[in-house]
Amino acid sequence: RPPNADLQRAGAFKAVTSLANPTIKEIRALQLRKHRAETGLFLGEGVKLAADALAAGWPVRTLVVASDAIAHPFVARTAATARARGALVIEANEAVMAKISRRDNPQTVIGVFEQHIGGLEAIAAARPGIWIALEAVRDPGNLGTIVRTADALGAAGVLLVGETTDPFGLEAVRATMGSFFHVPLARASVAEFLAWRKSYRGLVVGTHLAGAVDIRSVDYREPAVLAMGNEQAGLSPEMAAACDHLVKIPMAGQADSLNLAISTGIALFEMRRGKLAL
Amino acid sequence: RPPNADLQRAGAFKAVTSLANPTIKEIRALQLRKHRAETGLFLGEGVKLAADALAAGWPVRTLVVASDAIAHPFVARTAATARARGALVIEANEAVMAKISRRDNPQTVIGVFEQHIGGLEAIAAARPGIWIALEAVRDPGNLGTIVRTADALGAAGVLLVGETTDPFGLEAVRATMGSFFHVPLARASVAEFLAWRKSYRGLVVGTHLAGAVDIRSVDYREPAVLAMGNEQAGLSPEMAAACDHLVKIPMAGQADSLNLAISTGIALFEMRRGKLAL
Ligand SMILES: [Co+2]
Ligand SMILES: [Co+2]
Repeated sequence: RPPNADLQRAGAFKAVTSLANPTIKEIRALQLRKHRAETGLFLGEGVKLAADALAAGWPVRTLVVASDAIAHPFVARTAATARARGALVIEANEAVMAKISRRDNPQTVIGVFEQHIGGLEAIAAARPGIWIALEAVRDPGNLGTIVRTADALGAAGVLLVGETTDPFGLEAVRATMGSFFHVPLARASVAEFLAWRKSYRGLVVGTHLAGAVDIRSVDYREPAVLAMGNEQAGLSPEMAAACDHLVKIPMAGQADSLNLAISTGIALFEMRRGKLAL
Repeated sequence: RPPNADLQRAGAFKAVTSLANPTIKEIRALQLRKHRAETGLFLGEGVKLAADALAAGWPVRTLVVASDAIAHPFVARTAATARARGALVIEANEAVMAKISRRDNPQTVIGVFEQHIGGLEAIAAARPGIWIALEAVRDPGNLGTIVRTADALGAAGVLLVGETTDPFGLEAVRATMGSFFHVPLARASVAEFLAWRKSYRGLVVGTHLAGAVDIRSVDYREPAVLAMGNEQAGLSPEMAAACDHLVKIPMAGQADSLNLAISTGIALFEMRRGKLAL
């Protein structure tokens, strides 16, 4: 029996108090990107996040629930729903919770979810709209915040281009505040994006510090791709060359640039001005 | 001689290899908010940050420089400038640097700077424009990112209202990316703000999920205050009641709300649309 057989056994319930428990070890290993990639699973913290996943119909493999919270009505209801959908529910003590989450004050629920991320075909498959293409994004907090922003402002999805931080890392998932389960994700290499772009019928807009065009001056339409470069270097020359418009957010101070998530938020709001209403 | 006498001795240079060195202990203690408040000092990491502080004429008390970086031209020039301005320059090994910054890969320079933050009188004293009033902001990354955004979009300053996270904490300073030294900071209690507001001649605009007005529909003028509530609760009823307009960013998705720094960025860009140019 492989050490993670418990993760495959659906709808079960068990109590665990030992850090040496093999299932707990497998769950803890999901802190590592390598292990997430091997298993196709990821961790997310908090009962609200688990409830968001279940509400969105997202596959939940395991819920680890703190012993002292398992009687809380919202926690109990969430755990029951997860079990009914075939998840394993593990009751654990605070030491185990802290070890899994690497935090002194762990959340009361930690979920193990299945990874779902498409390729460029996901763009045509999703509802039409604006995809945010993030080239080589490094900071998981920025990535998660951008996914949350994409959800709030009604973008169609988030595309990761090139080597990026892992969207399934704990910090990225945390920063999405539950929007993770509402926003389609896709990924592609730069070469794949450039090839795909040739037959894409939408508008491709990139933000660039050398952008000659004021971001407010373009007549936006959807579908579109909003291409954002990474925190240090901005868009690569190849990606910039693939854009219909290179735009710049006008600035007025001494700062070199805006934070990536802020500039993405402002750019997306600008592109969707005509579509948003209170 | 008090343990921090070295911090008072201007223009000096010394090499330190021991974590037990009293000056290093005093510097490390600046990780704690309590100790920052007692001394009126704070820490900032990175040679770029130190250079930004010196360029802005900000008082630099001490620079701790990693031994293996002290010959680097930019580091050497920055250290020389700091010494010429009366700062103590300490050369330290990597173990000491890691201990001060609480990081495995410490920056090559860590600075000790003087805190400067005004009260409400700072608003009249600064150039006219938009002050961002942050009520009870909790997250240091959000606060720092908002200071950076204020700089980039040309706000006049950032006002902290009520009990907030410490703007002089390492994480907040880090997130400003050097804009810390370009943006006037002030703080006030809610009661002080409400009293001050009665004689303020500018516009006070608050963002509020219950805001009846689309943020794009107001005719903005400066000077103004943009009041933002905290991450969990939004603006308090007292603060909301003090606003001329309660506005809302139109949204389109399933997310409950935008991240605080994102909504502040979008709101500030909206208010300054007429003033910004490429
Ligand atoms: Co949600
Ligand atoms: Co600067």
